[in-house]
Amino acid sequence: MTNFINSCVISIIKKNSPLVVGLDPHFDLFPSIYKNNSTTQKEIASGILDFNRKIIDAVYDIVPAVKPQIAFYEKFGLDGLTAYSNTIKYAKDKGLLVIGDIKRNDIDSTARAYSDAHLSETIYNSIENHDFNVDAITINPYFGSDGIKPFVDNIKKFGKGVFVLVKTSNPSSKEFQDVIVESSQNDKIKFHELVAQYVNKWGKDSIGEYGYSSVGAVVGATFPEEIKILREIMPNTYFLLPGIGTQGGKINEIKPCFDKNKLGALISVSRSVLYAYKNNSKFNESLFAEAARDEVLKINKQIAVLFN
Amino acid sequence: MTNFINSCVISIIKKNSPLVVGLDPHFDLFPSIYKNNSTTQKEIASGILDFNRKIIDAVYDIVPAVKPQIAFYEKFGLDGLTAYSNTIKYAKDKGLLVIGDIKRNDIDSTARAYSDAHLSETIYNSIENHDFNVDAITINPYFGSDGIKPFVDNIKKFGKGVFVLVKTSNPSSKEFQDVIVESSQNDKIKFHELVAQYVNKWGKDSIGEYGYSSVGAVVGATFPEEIKILREIMPNTYFLLPGIGTQGGKINEIKPCFDKNKLGALISVSRSVLYAYKNNSKFNESLFAEAARDEVLKINKQIAVLFN
Repeated sequence: MTNFINSCVISIIKKNSPLVVGLDPHFDLFPSIYKNNSTTQKEIASGILDFNRKIIDAVYDIVPAVKPQIAFYEKFGLDGLTAYSNTIKYAKDKGLLVIGDIKRNDIDSTARAYSDAHLSETIYNSIENHDFNVDAITINPYFGSDGIKPFVDNIKKFGKGVFVLVKTSNPSSKEFQDVIVESSQNDKIKFHELVAQYVNKWGKDSIGEYGYSSVGAVVGATFPEEIKILREIMPNTYFLLPGIGTQGGKINEIKPCFDKNKLGALISVSRSVLYAYKNNSKFNESLFAEAARDEVLKINKQIAVLFN
Repeated sequence: MTNFINSCVISIIKKNSPLVVGLDPHFDLFPSIYKNNSTTQKEIASGILDFNRKIIDAVYDIVPAVKPQIAFYEKFGLDGLTAYSNTIKYAKDKGLLVIGDIKRNDIDSTARAYSDAHLSETIYNSIENHDFNVDAITINPYFGSDGIKPFVDNIKKFGKGVFVLVKTSNPSSKEFQDVIVESSQNDKIKFHELVAQYVNKWGKDSIGEYGYSSVGAVVGATFPEEIKILREIMPNTYFLLPGIGTQGGKINEIKPCFDKNKLGALISVSRSVLYAYKNNSKFNESLFAEAARDEVLKINKQIAVLFN
């Protein structure tokens, strides 16, 4: 059976890159040819799929994974979600791992429905899951352990993965995630450190051969000090790091995530790659995919320098 | 312009019921005629829509709102979400308010995409939102204020509503939601009480003529002691109370939610109504809709007794 985190590590080594390209179709930022040709929801969705395919074609050999953010597809209704589904299939066909950035969760029976929607090979009896089946997803910890179990079950059953929100990359993440709480050992810790303790525990039974678990954590690259502490709390947890680029996170500050084999974290970049053509005079907007590849190569180099 | 919480109160008074029927299609619990006739995703989805229409026909005159839980539609892929969309339209046509139980959220730009997907009249320029447009949704507070703002914006712009998760109905909600934190006033409070303080603040600008805000709160009916405290922290917040019935919450314990005009909370019931035919010998499974109506009438009576 496949094992998400093993496949992920193998692909990171093969592509020599821990970069995940976030497929977040902010339609406002799209090249004008897409915007000018779209006057219906269906046309927008079809433009998004075409854009994604060109981005995937341009980067599939230099990154291990893509991460479509489902909100930007959901915004365009059923047509948008059809584009989400077809983007998943296209990326898989190109040998990429697909992380569905869906941040779902709920109470147990409902969490099970989400887990089956996105992390199961079948949806009912032997009916195949052919729409939203991805390799891993992001999930929200607010409900506690019984909202997490259905996802961990499908990790074990189908070789999938999850990344649990621990410390998110946005400025107001401090309001709840940084409040001081009393841990079970009567220590005073930050709320997100408590969540990290649980994530570490939830992942214990899913550790693969490289020492990492298929229960990963979302940790904002915008908070380098927190990253160091979280690495200590979660030594076997793969980190998914958003926040590099547009949000202000810096590659040279995230080294503590990585082990001596350059493993331990996926770095997620979205806007700064997809819309690189806007900030690079070498490329006009018809060359948006080439601009994206150029930007990925640049970031891959910056990461390589990190390990020199 | 419409105002969600005003419309909600008017409908509660007119129907003489604060009950919300949760449309959670647990397909395993469906009458056998649906299960026997379904061997594809499309057939299951078409069965779900038919089931929902019959439930809506049976209860639309005795409840103010329905609440489809999107996870159970997402499980059946694009066909399932087509059934979700058509369920919304059918319920609106019957004069019901529709609360999308979607528990979404993310960082600001992504939260805006979710907000536009579910709470906007248009999805891009003047293209109408014809798939997932509902009256209110449930959202997750984990990201803090900048993940909430895009929803509050659409409340003001389009007269919509949200219910923010505060204290969820499941047993393990205690793991994170009940930990002791220090508030800004240096009081020691439970984490969900801190969230409640924020919800109260987020709703201040959206208070309607009945004294309640269109920024509501999800509070588990399974925790009656917490309910009393949360009512004090959030005096102007409409509560959405899941957990009555299958999850063990009891109607006679939730009176503290209500004001002297019997307003202040919506009571959500799902499994105990939808699948009432399983526990009621008066109805065989072909009469599932009649059994659901019978159960709603019983609960409406129990609520009326609460106010005697």
